[in-house]
Amino acid sequence: MNEVKTYLNRVAEAVETILDELLPKESEYPPSIHTLMRYTVFAGGKRLRPALLMAAYEACGGTFGDRPALAAGAALEMFHTFSLIHDDLPCMDDDDLRRGRPTAHKAFNEALAVLGGDALCIAAFEVLANTGNISLIIEIASALGTNGMLGGQVVDIESEGKKVDRATVEYIHKSKTAALIRSSVRMGAMLAGASVDTLEKLSSFGGRIGLAFQVVDDILDEESTTEQLGKDAGSDRERGKATFPAICGMKASKQYARELVDRAWKDIAFLNERGDLLHRLAGFIITRIS
Amino acid sequence: MNEVKTYLNRVAEAVETILDELLPKESEYPPSIHTLMRYTVFAGGKRLRPALLMAAYEACGGTFGDRPALAAGAALEMFHTFSLIHDDLPCMDDDDLRRGRPTAHKAFNEALAVLGGDALCIAAFEVLANTGNISLIIEIASALGTNGMLGGQVVDIESEGKKVDRATVEYIHKSKTAALIRSSVRMGAMLAGASVDTLEKLSSFGGRIGLAFQVVDDILDEESTTEQLGKDAGSDRERGKATFPAICGMKASKQYARELVDRAWKDIAFLNERGDLLHRLAGFIITRIS
Repeated sequence: MNEVKTYLNRVAEAVETILDELLPKESEYPPSIHTLMRYTVFAGGKRLRPALLMAAYEACGGTFGDRPALAAGAALEMFHTFSLIHDDLPCMDDDDLRRGRPTAHKAFNEALAVLGGDALCIAAFEVLANTGNISLIIEIASALGTNGMLGGQVVDIESEGKKVDRATVEYIHKSKTAALIRSSVRMGAMLAGASVDTLEKLSSFGGRIGLAFQVVDDILDEESTTEQLGKDAGSDRERGKATFPAICGMKASKQYARELVDRAWKDIAFLNERGDLLHRLAGFIITRIS
Repeated sequence: MNEVKTYLNRVAEAVETILDELLPKESEYPPSIHTLMRYTVFAGGKRLRPALLMAAYEACGGTFGDRPALAAGAALEMFHTFSLIHDDLPCMDDDDLRRGRPTAHKAFNEALAVLGGDALCIAAFEVLANTGNISLIIEIASALGTNGMLGGQVVDIESEGKKVDRATVEYIHKSKTAALIRSSVRMGAMLAGASVDTLEKLSSFGGRIGLAFQVVDDILDEESTTEQLGKDAGSDRERGKATFPAICGMKASKQYARELVDRAWKDIAFLNERGDLLHRLAGFIITRIS
């Protein structure tokens, strides 16, 4: 447990240094959008996606802290933040709090939140392009597009207040959350030049822990206080969101999250001790509901 | 004049064929966002940006209709449409009409308009990545980001109803509109392997006609009817937008647009007859105010 936290902190520190270097200074014209970009990107956050990327990179032979892996990790955080800013908008989830602070459209305004999200997305593509690795761009565009994150977000919004089946919730979670987490793992493996076989097993691992992550998120939304979460607790139920606890109940949801991590562990058993960090990071996801 | 229209039609036909091939079918899950993407991309439009790309490509030795140039042209239209969808949102310009039809958030809803814009932006990066030419991605990301289009959009919104100086209007127009038009020309030249010197001259050409284009747009917003424009006429004045006619008057604005095109023509004089199409396309921009 302490090892995971130490690793997350190491990655966070390295990635935040790069983010600080890559993002325009707040004073750069026009300052409002640059201030918003930094406000949202430096709001805390565990930096789980860059950590998964780096751990997969190391598991496949890469060295901690190599510049392309750090830059790709920074891009992941920018994409993730872009999606959070747009998800929080009044026309979407209409959330006022994120990581214990006012959301972007509350702290600034709605127009700037739309444009700031756009700017982070575009800047993240630029960061990836500057690594010179075009396959990373194809990978992430596919994970973020309507066949991935955005598709999940659409169905999530359109399912609000409706009675949906388990397959739909599974689609939403796999697309909205798991696709980007799966890509984080894949990008680390790709940067390290992993074989097709290794990449396939790591993709399966990433997809499973990504889904587990969102199931846990649903559980925490239901069980925690707003103070614990840093965002409005119970908002899923309030908005009639399609969640696992709503469909299968709390007990089955917890069991499902644990099963997913179990299967993910099996996916990477072939890595032996090289997979230790990935193994621990996967375990970390479910400690939040233990 | 007829030659320009013929060329625009040829490019439009070729680019629309590629767009139809690249964009997910409306029936693909989730259908709502794919329907919105096609509704906005296939709303007409002159396809001026792909035409400028293709004309620059041909001027630098490329052959009309080569796949990478067409794909890059299709990506430009997707980026352009993404920016229009977000610009039209209630929290931005709050426009109800675009190309004679209800804007995306009116025809669908606001959440889907935000996500559909995002999806077009991301898909466009994927299209560019699939050309294998990473320098195109760096080029367009820089043109679209806070140092380009998005920066212009921020200052445009923040200047509404305020008394601004000519330098600010010039900044807004150069960033919001000219940056993408300049990049269209540059990308054509880059794809054809133009020399640094040629690229520099074409960049200057593209920047000038891009600025002329927005000045003309300001003039038309003031002088035309909603029917002629296909979007709400007079909306700039109504919203207290920073425009050239508002700052310099109508006569000086028209003169400025013509001067810009004159100077743009000089930029490409070195191309001799190879620059004919670019020359005509530049001229086409100001025929709208003749």
